[in-house]
Amino acid sequence: MPEGNKKDALADGRIRAVIDAVYPAVDGGRFAVKRVCGERMVVEADCFTDGHDALRVMLRWRGERESAWRETEMAHLGNDRWRGEFVTGDPGRYRYSVTAWVDHFLSWRREFMRREDAEDIRTAALVGAGLLGETAARAKGADRKRLSERANHLKAESDVAKLRTAALDEELAAVAARYPDRGLAAVWPTDMPLTVERERARFSSWYELFPRSTSPEAGRHGTFRDCEARLPYVAELGFDVLYLSPIHPIGREKRKGRNNALAAGPDDVGSPWAIGAAEGGHKAVHPALGTMEDFRRLVAKAREHGIEIALDIAYQCAPDHPYVTEHPQWFRWRPDGSVQYAENPPKKYEDIFPFNFETGDWRGLWQELKSVIDFWIGEGVKIFRVDNPHTKAFGFWEWAIAEIGQAHPDVIFLSEAFTRPMVMHRLAKLGFTQSYTYFAWRNTRHELAEYFTELAQGPGREYFRPNVWPNTPDILTEALQFGGRPMFMARVVLAATLAANYGIYGPAYELMENVPREPGSEEYLNSEKYELRHWDLDRPDSLRAFIALINRIRRENPALQSDGSLRFFPTDNDQLICYAKMDETGDNAIVTVVNLDPRNPHSGWVDLDLALLGIDSHLQYQMHDLLTGARYLWQGSRNFVMLDPARVPAHVFRVRRRVHREQDFDYFA
Amino acid sequence: MPEGNKKDALADGRIRAVIDAVYPAVDGGRFAVKRVCGERMVVEADCFTDGHDALRVMLRWRGERESAWRETEMAHLGNDRWRGEFVTGDPGRYRYSVTAWVDHFLSWRREFMRREDAEDIRTAALVGAGLLGETAARAKGADRKRLSERANHLKAESDVAKLRTAALDEELAAVAARYPDRGLAAVWPTDMPLTVERERARFSSWYELFPRSTSPEAGRHGTFRDCEARLPYVAELGFDVLYLSPIHPIGREKRKGRNNALAAGPDDVGSPWAIGAAEGGHKAVHPALGTMEDFRRLVAKAREHGIEIALDIAYQCAPDHPYVTEHPQWFRWRPDGSVQYAENPPKKYEDIFPFNFETGDWRGLWQELKSVIDFWIGEGVKIFRVDNPHTKAFGFWEWAIAEIGQAHPDVIFLSEAFTRPMVMHRLAKLGFTQSYTYFAWRNTRHELAEYFTELAQGPGREYFRPNVWPNTPDILTEALQFGGRPMFMARVVLAATLAANYGIYGPAYELMENVPREPGSEEYLNSEKYELRHWDLDRPDSLRAFIALINRIRRENPALQSDGSLRFFPTDNDQLICYAKMDETGDNAIVTVVNLDPRNPHSGWVDLDLALLGIDSHLQYQMHDLLTGARYLWQGSRNFVMLDPARVPAHVFRVRRRVHREQDFDYFA
Repeated sequence: MPEGNKKDALADGRIRAVIDAVYPAVDGGRFAVKRVCGERMVVEADCFTDGHDALRVMLRWRGERESAWRETEMAHLGNDRWRGEFVTGDPGRYRYSVTAWVDHFLSWRREFMRREDAEDIRTAALVGAGLLGETAARAKGADRKRLSERANHLKAESDVAKLRTAALDEELAAVAARYPDRGLAAVWPTDMPLTVERERARFSSWYELFPRSTSPEAGRHGTFRDCEARLPYVAELGFDVLYLSPIHPIGREKRKGRNNALAAGPDDVGSPWAIGAAEGGHKAVHPALGTMEDFRRLVAKAREHGIEIALDIAYQCAPDHPYVTEHPQWFRWRPDGSVQYAENPPKKYEDIFPFNFETGDWRGLWQELKSVIDFWIGEGVKIFRVDNPHTKAFGFWEWAIAEIGQAHPDVIFLSEAFTRPMVMHRLAKLGFTQSYTYFAWRNTRHELAEYFTELAQGPGREYFRPNVWPNTPDILTEALQFGGRPMFMARVVLAATLAANYGIYGPAYELMENVPREPGSEEYLNSEKYELRHWDLDRPDSLRAFIALINRIRRENPALQSDGSLRFFPTDNDQLICYAKMDETGDNAIVTVVNLDPRNPHSGWVDLDLALLGIDSHLQYQMHDLLTGARYLWQGSRNFVMLDPARVPAHVFRVRRRVHREQDFDYFA
Repeated sequence: MPEGNKKDALADGRIRAVIDAVYPAVDGGRFAVKRVCGERMVVEADCFTDGHDALRVMLRWRGERESAWRETEMAHLGNDRWRGEFVTGDPGRYRYSVTAWVDHFLSWRREFMRREDAEDIRTAALVGAGLLGETAARAKGADRKRLSERANHLKAESDVAKLRTAALDEELAAVAARYPDRGLAAVWPTDMPLTVERERARFSSWYELFPRSTSPEAGRHGTFRDCEARLPYVAELGFDVLYLSPIHPIGREKRKGRNNALAAGPDDVGSPWAIGAAEGGHKAVHPALGTMEDFRRLVAKAREHGIEIALDIAYQCAPDHPYVTEHPQWFRWRPDGSVQYAENPPKKYEDIFPFNFETGDWRGLWQELKSVIDFWIGEGVKIFRVDNPHTKAFGFWEWAIAEIGQAHPDVIFLSEAFTRPMVMHRLAKLGFTQSYTYFAWRNTRHELAEYFTELAQGPGREYFRPNVWPNTPDILTEALQFGGRPMFMARVVLAATLAANYGIYGPAYELMENVPREPGSEEYLNSEKYELRHWDLDRPDSLRAFIALINRIRRENPALQSDGSLRFFPTDNDQLICYAKMDETGDNAIVTVVNLDPRNPHSGWVDLDLALLGIDSHLQYQMHDLLTGARYLWQGSRNFVMLDPARVPAHVFRVRRRVHREQDFDYFA
């Protein structure tokens, strides 16, 4: 016997509504779409039925562990595409789906409108009376009574004009719509996952520092107390996430010296990423930084400044990490009885032991690794920057992030995977909140426009949130090495206006540290990764005020707080890049123009999309440069700009559509 | 306890290989990709693992009811994309999938190549010896012995140069590759469906006629015997599918008269789509056409001419169809005790009763409808043109086509759904072999290029096989009404060269029937749908020779026998359209140029993509016009064409790359 189309849950062959597709979807619902709380979640679906009958389509959603759906009606956009939306709730995992059915009353009503023949209308009225009678049987109270009365009226009336009026009454349609027969509704077979996160998942400004380099005294190891003293500075700069390099005990075996020397001297502090020593491992703090109590204080004080502390999660061990002796089964052993250190021949990283994710004790390893994050959540940390997640088993991340998210839906994970595109995307699909990008190496107008258009509009837009960094402790790009102050200014403007999530590694950035370890290298000379540094934050050439201004502009302009609206505009000079972002309402629009050449002033014409910006092409509009305070009156799409990198290499314009005119004067009119 | 990623079938958390996507896929594997027998099935997959380890990836496929997979190794294309292929077998349903694993021997070998340090090489050799030992344990016979020997050699040898030679031996790698450890292989979770059909699914030339109009005597009802006599004519024209309008008894109740008159006269024959009368229904033949035995003879004779008979499947009933009394539950009844006829208010089709697919007896209805097709398959018919499938429940088609396909994988279904794009696509996904298109209403260069590019390259390319018709009994386009002979020539050239599957409704087409029932209508005046017609096939202006030539060109040029290679080229005159098709090898390339203006000669420059056509831009090449026999020597991408619609409105060029040169002469040194 036929059993209908089982895949569409059509156990009943009478189900005639078809749901052909639901958008958005990440890999057909295998992975979650991401939103933040209070955002509009717009869902579209391709739905139709055979013949001419009318369809009704509902968008439904629920918390992942709830059983009851909430529903909202979807509207037909044309060509069988339907759209509905809801506003996302608290952080957590949700499910959404679509259901559709052939609606007999609606079909009858739509056909009734087109009927011309009197006899035909009378027969149709009888059919409608039957449908209304069935509808009444499903209704309650006053509605039930009213539907029954209308059914009887349609049966009794013979005047065609009156029948038409009665049948097509809008109010009747509204009442009937509340009691549809959904017995033959089609349901989209996948309950599509949706992850809702807190707002900082979408909009955040990161500042990375090495706690040990925060001492006001040169040569002394910095402490959590010193970090505390640095908080007002970070707050003044306008950052809301303070990300610390690893704070754990550092291995002594095979420790690296300054500038990554193979042998360390007795005073060398080693790399904070060589985690673990006699004092403890991933759940301990380096004694020189202070105590756990000091750390808790730092977290609390930071919160007072509106700053969250983010920790680094680097799942790897120094040779003297306690795990190595306590859980030898988590490491790969070589025939010579030694543990296999990290390597990418011919390169060797003797001070680092990777975990063996193929260990028979993978369950024990997974639980322990997850417990590291749980431990720091217990200490008040809610943001984690994960070091090289692409060198750990992908299955682990999906499990761990889901488990942690269920208990703590406000935890944010940043994926530090500078690797191939598909791998970066997979990590984002598996649950990472934000992801590092290739921004550091995108310099020309074409490169930037192509890459950021892909990020804003490609399939990743539903799950891959870029977090862009002009520098990191590992990345001192050639642009920064050779571009001087104008390049440091341009790159931070680009980062902060192209991406709602961005960060800098400071104080190296604001102090424009630009000397590589050797020509052709992207490593810093005298990198903090291997030694203490002392920074003169008050240097008069510091970019701190400029960066503070940029972060203020970001806070004050919702356009810069999300990424989907980004659009690039043409310019007639390749050294000038121009783009806009708008907020959801369209009220707040920011147009940024950057001179990409750090050496020469450039001028040219930019060509705005006025319709996109909501500007009437016949009227003047004001471009208010938030960096300099200057205001320009523009008209039409093509306008002239000139940027001298020796002064400010960028305009960050707030578009002000209203320009005063003669009508504004009291005596006008 | 963690259980790994269940959706990827990772019960085991140690599985580190990731399969992120598999292509092609129709709705993520919900529907089948379509191919014909003996075609290359190219599958790509996005696969990677954490870290630097080496992956091996296998494409696997099997018959839907087989349990054993066949496998072929996939090759890495770069950026984590892998590709493999197999050649499709006999018609039927297949499944394909992908499996991937981290290969420790391969990883070891790749790293070994890059090792420099002697001590490092010696330790790595010991690791390799262990891996080879494990590989040997999985091997058999001579391979096992050889792998063990190599393992021992790697253990014993200390000379670094010799170790390197031994470890990197290609033959050793090939032997080891036969015995991988696949214990931790990832498997793509969906066994993706593939429907393989016979070649005619991809390449067919249809000729539609009304059997009752085949009598050599005007006014006499044609018979199957008359159809038999028509076969040599159809064969001469070069068609391989002869599609007959419905051959069943025609209802007498509410029968329509000539030109769709509401009332029929006593001699009116009625519409063949008003199926069923006292003589029988969908499994009977109209007595005036002959007997079932005559029909069987026609099928057999057609086969002798290389022609297949295609029948029309129109699931609807005349009021006097036996179903109406035998199965009243399959129809929708109105309060006045009558059956609801087909209507789209204010239009009424009183001679047609649709089935009610919401009947409680839907199982009985589905079985009976399917049995109609089974009946005609039993009479030797393998091709069915389905009338208005979009007005029947979609679930029925998916079930019926799958059921029939399992028993008779050589059956072909053509979907006659002239409706909205998503509905047409859904029917193709549900299993229809071929689909009617919007070709009849695509006239300008832009319209044709846009539409056929979408058909050839859009997502539908995996499942939607266009079958294009310049006319049908319902569609006499304005282009044909007003374009005269040049338009009839141009439109058949377009149909036959743009699409591997095409058809005409004859003899109306070759005799250039072009008078509509009334101005603005696409209905034929004196349509065969409502009356007998007599056609003078020997009229000197008939296009029969021209059409025969076109069909011969199609048979002789594999480029025209599939659709995926279609590409349009620019021309500097909007009235000239230019496009190419190539076969799989690239040896056979056809470039078509059509003058779309039936009234005026047009000339202009066409701009070929020489790289695509495999033409060396420095050499001359010959364009051999298969319509006229003329040969032109062209060079470079831009060349001049001139087409006079009064003569032939098109070039159909076979590209001949080899042009004779001086070197071809005997005396050339």
